[in-house]
Amino acid sequence: MNRDRIAALHDQYCACLLDDVMPFWLTHSLDPGYGGYLTCLDRTGTPYGTDKAMWLQARGVWMFSKLYNTIERRPEWLEAARMGYDFVRRHGFDTDGRMFFSVTRDGQPLRKRRYLFTETFGVIACSEYARATGDPNALQCARDTYRLLLDLHRTPGALPAKVDPNTRSTKALAMPMILLATTLELLLVDQDPLYDEVMDQSVGEIVNHFMKRDECALHETVGPNGERLDTPEGRCLCPGHAIETAWFMLHLAERRGMNDQALIDTALDILRWSLDWGWDKEHGGLLYYVDCEGKPPEQLEWDMKLWWPHTEALYAVLLAHHLTGDADLETWYDKLHDWSFAHFPDPEYGEWYGYLHRDGTLALPVKGSIWKGAFHVPRGLWLCLMLLKKMVEK
Amino acid sequence: MNRDRIAALHDQYCACLLDDVMPFWLTHSLDPGYGGYLTCLDRTGTPYGTDKAMWLQARGVWMFSKLYNTIERRPEWLEAARMGYDFVRRHGFDTDGRMFFSVTRDGQPLRKRRYLFTETFGVIACSEYARATGDPNALQCARDTYRLLLDLHRTPGALPAKVDPNTRSTKALAMPMILLATTLELLLVDQDPLYDEVMDQSVGEIVNHFMKRDECALHETVGPNGERLDTPEGRCLCPGHAIETAWFMLHLAERRGMNDQALIDTALDILRWSLDWGWDKEHGGLLYYVDCEGKPPEQLEWDMKLWWPHTEALYAVLLAHHLTGDADLETWYDKLHDWSFAHFPDPEYGEWYGYLHRDGTLALPVKGSIWKGAFHVPRGLWLCLMLLKKMVEK
Repeated sequence: MNRDRIAALHDQYCACLLDDVMPFWLTHSLDPGYGGYLTCLDRTGTPYGTDKAMWLQARGVWMFSKLYNTIERRPEWLEAARMGYDFVRRHGFDTDGRMFFSVTRDGQPLRKRRYLFTETFGVIACSEYARATGDPNALQCARDTYRLLLDLHRTPGALPAKVDPNTRSTKALAMPMILLATTLELLLVDQDPLYDEVMDQSVGEIVNHFMKRDECALHETVGPNGERLDTPEGRCLCPGHAIETAWFMLHLAERRGMNDQALIDTALDILRWSLDWGWDKEHGGLLYYVDCEGKPPEQLEWDMKLWWPHTEALYAVLLAHHLTGDADLETWYDKLHDWSFAHFPDPEYGEWYGYLHRDGTLALPVKGSIWKGAFHVPRGLWLCLMLLKKMVEK
Repeated sequence: MNRDRIAALHDQYCACLLDDVMPFWLTHSLDPGYGGYLTCLDRTGTPYGTDKAMWLQARGVWMFSKLYNTIERRPEWLEAARMGYDFVRRHGFDTDGRMFFSVTRDGQPLRKRRYLFTETFGVIACSEYARATGDPNALQCARDTYRLLLDLHRTPGALPAKVDPNTRSTKALAMPMILLATTLELLLVDQDPLYDEVMDQSVGEIVNHFMKRDECALHETVGPNGERLDTPEGRCLCPGHAIETAWFMLHLAERRGMNDQALIDTALDILRWSLDWGWDKEHGGLLYYVDCEGKPPEQLEWDMKLWWPHTEALYAVLLAHHLTGDADLETWYDKLHDWSFAHFPDPEYGEWYGYLHRDGTLALPVKGSIWKGAFHVPRGLWLCLMLLKKMVEK
């Protein structure tokens, strides 16, 4: 990528993040009356719902803290982080140390689910907030929650199964993927031999169980020992998830000094495969789900274009191109960048739309939901921005 | 509606049901090796999954039995019903009398859910099969399952709540709606004062709690005493559900000799309101979900066009037009008929597609899924056919 292009991209992502996306969330999402963040925001930023999904409370804390820790120590970012952190600490945890999935505007528990994802986001919220503030209590909460979720994950039967385990046992890519990502964040503020053990185990599972080299695919669901399942679930690929996994693996490789060429090559394979699986040759953009045998997917939304696979792909491809200099990856980056910026941003009210039809037209005119908050768009832009800064300086 | 039109529709629905839709299911869905029905069928009828959703096993038994009981005593329909009935009796029930939501191809339990819908379909499967065969055991199973689900429904806390009931208590239209429909079926083969009590209570709940006359809307979710909830869930309308509810209410009115004019008028109001809410003025067809304040719906699939709201609407509108002679309803019927027959049927491989984009293009190229089997399309066609026969004879 030539220097002018890098500089132009740097400025574009910087402006998009700091002058458009973050102001949208700072203006519309903070809820000083009750604490925490409102994320069900329509096109203009007006709330259409006030329930608070704990995923997005925690992810917001992480994002505001991250900007404060890496871009500039702006008091409004720290204050926004604190508002979310206090809410998470006060209303996010059940008495057993597990976290609620959603609560009311004022923090009363609504749902607690069988999955551990909320807890992983609780960990990164507390660890990044601890980096911002030096608060030892926040760090301890990150550590405790990490150990609790790890124990539950490693204890068979500790959490109720969705499907009768006597009949069918499966496991999901999401767990090793998110454990890898969570641990990489925790390592920024804490040291423990456990962390490398967890990351090695996660990558081992991803590579040995979920990745099928003969199919050039990273699967979403496999049997307990990586058995390929001939069910719609077992054939299901989520290109966005796989692409996200690839950059988590590249971050691990970077952390370890770029000496593990097998890890790097595997991450690049997963990335390239998943771009091929996901790219919609008819309308452009990345499909949400694909059946790896070309059979019909189960999900009604399989062909929708969602914001997060695109922001994940932008960063993963930029990073992979930066590490390899591969010209094909630059072409991929251009395609992704052009399609994403042509379809997702809303120049009138700011931020990105979340949910488009296959043909790129708007499906849901919202900027936030119980699944979309101040996370994937700003995180993707921030990751690209940090990398572009490094590329400019090189 | 003029006589020629009625006769032409009669012949069209008859051919569609008997020469197209039912042959599709008889050819592709029966699973003689394991019993029961395969319903995850692609465009051509080839299975893309073999798990068996108990909803559709039971609904298939009902449909095959119903045709046998009302159209013609064809041995292949009875045999198809028996194949499903045996599977449901052998593999559908847990030891506590509740039913599984899904099982493997050979009947091993996969999921049992907190909702009672599977049990309601178990009741209509057994009752209609009892009508076909005179089997007292089938009738007893229908009665027992009905009483069990009613007890569970009426006992607060008997089933785990999705949302913490200490924080927020809600109830769903689906329960009184399906209790009304289930009881109407059971009454064809059994007598008990309980049945009228349940139907009165269900209609009372629908009219007094879920229907909001000032909004001209039948809501999906309200508070325990009919409180209008200002949440996305509380604002959500499902026109297909509401339209289905309307014809269940008209069937109750017919059963009671058409003397309850208030019930009839209310059902007609719900029907007309819901057509107005649901009809997509841009692309035609019925939207899946609508927010009654025009705010963004939560469901990604809100603007998709699904098969079942259309088959429900075809029958509800035809019945309402037949009962009232209202010319506006005939116009609605023509619009629904034309749009449905232009978009859903697959002339090449038979049956109807299930899942279209908002603009009517194909979203999922399947004829069956864990939600779509030998039920809404053939039931809608059969209901219209029975009514058209009556209209021809008049």
